[in-house]
Amino acid sequence: MQILKLGGSVVTDKDQPFKPHTENIERLAREIAASAPQSLVIVHGGGSYGHPVAKKFSINEGYKSPDQILGFSKTHQAMIQLNHIIVDALLAAGVPAFSVSPSSFIVTEKKRITTLDLSIVIKLLDSGMVPVLYGDAVLDSHQRFAILSGDQLIVKLAKYLDAKRVILGSDVDGVYTADPKLVETAELLRVLPISDVTGKVKIGEALSTDVTGGMLGKIMEVSEAAKAGVDVILLNACEPGRVQAALRGEKVIGTTLTR
Amino acid sequence: MQILKLGGSVVTDKDQPFKPHTENIERLAREIAASAPQSLVIVHGGGSYGHPVAKKFSINEGYKSPDQILGFSKTHQAMIQLNHIIVDALLAAGVPAFSVSPSSFIVTEKKRITTLDLSIVIKLLDSGMVPVLYGDAVLDSHQRFAILSGDQLIVKLAKYLDAKRVILGSDVDGVYTADPKLVETAELLRVLPISDVTGKVKIGEALSTDVTGGMLGKIMEVSEAAKAGVDVILLNACEPGRVQAALRGEKVIGTTLTR
Repeated sequence: MQILKLGGSVVTDKDQPFKPHTENIERLAREIAASAPQSLVIVHGGGSYGHPVAKKFSINEGYKSPDQILGFSKTHQAMIQLNHIIVDALLAAGVPAFSVSPSSFIVTEKKRITTLDLSIVIKLLDSGMVPVLYGDAVLDSHQRFAILSGDQLIVKLAKYLDAKRVILGSDVDGVYTADPKLVETAELLRVLPISDVTGKVKIGEALSTDVTGGMLGKIMEVSEAAKAGVDVILLNACEPGRVQAALRGEKVIGTTLTR
Repeated sequence: MQILKLGGSVVTDKDQPFKPHTENIERLAREIAASAPQSLVIVHGGGSYGHPVAKKFSINEGYKSPDQILGFSKTHQAMIQLNHIIVDALLAAGVPAFSVSPSSFIVTEKKRITTLDLSIVIKLLDSGMVPVLYGDAVLDSHQRFAILSGDQLIVKLAKYLDAKRVILGSDVDGVYTADPKLVETAELLRVLPISDVTGKVKIGEALSTDVTGGMLGKIMEVSEAAKAGVDVILLNACEPGRVQAALRGEKVIGTTLTR
């Protein structure tokens, strides 16, 4: 089975609040339909839906004041709204997508998933459906609530569902030797051994200037799936055809994490 | 704790597909806010959102053909859309509502809930929030999928959460001795002993002409909660003030089921 993560930068216009990137969403729905995946789970990020609301109410810092309670729900509402658009687009393209709400069955502890009951996700897969989950505002047993990132979710899903491949779609081609916007000689790393990611010295030396905090955090998180033997590919989902090729197991421009 | 069911005839315009009854929804949100409930779960029906889609694809009859798969998801999408409108209205009125998706944590067996993990609903209540659930298209271990009615859900919630009161809001004042539209002398039953409901002969004699199939089914279902000692009140939620009064434990026009 495969897991496809669609980053917030792919499915929303990050500069405008509550603006879906309709063109990307509809194209990706068609690519997913065309790849005819046998067993697929999709997880998407928050982009300009979930993030601004979560930030405004400091949801990821946990409960501090009563006005956060409405903000906690508003963050979830924003994600439901984005998820609804994405699932509708998938259905329109003929993908048997089904919305699954993370906060309805996942509780974190200090922002981390400790136990996870995936029986419904598995039942959906067994029925030939494509569960569509998302980064969400969830209850937390330590700090009352937290943000569950899509990246944390896909690593758990990959391990528990014994995934063959995890495809991480963002708006960059992958991991570079340096920031391609600043350094002309920056090269895309087609392969990145996770020892380079997890060895902190090497990250400091080799990656600190060429990845954003977001990208570094993402790689650190998903390297856990690569460690477990899952093929992890970081690619640009804004470039037509790449997600479809990756889902088909074809060679594609991007960075593959290796053990 | 209390459970409030808002029927599809209250929150939608039943004659027009995908038309929320915005006036009722916003008024009820204010009534719920004004009643300042200590511990409340809200469940709403499908009305002109979920029902037409579920019917079109025969979702409640279970899996028979592949085209139902998209219909199963579309039914869920319709309910998410209605739920989003209702939760937004509650948040705007200051009610700390939080959307909980039944199909993300409930599986039925031959259309009935067999086990139910309410830990997230309980955590939300403990945090002072108001979980908002709905009748939904859910996975079924026997027939692949089914419709979980809001009425079945509230009975389970009432029992497992040890509810004090269940308020069932519809567009009629309660149960009458005869159909008030046909029989001039029809009287509203202020109290209805459940022995009159569960004794089939009596239903046949006394209620068959004055309740719709829907109302009879509803009473049969919710009488289970009354049997367990929960106060069950059927009232007209389209009439301003009644839901608020009932939530406050005040006397209100309606039918109370008694043991």
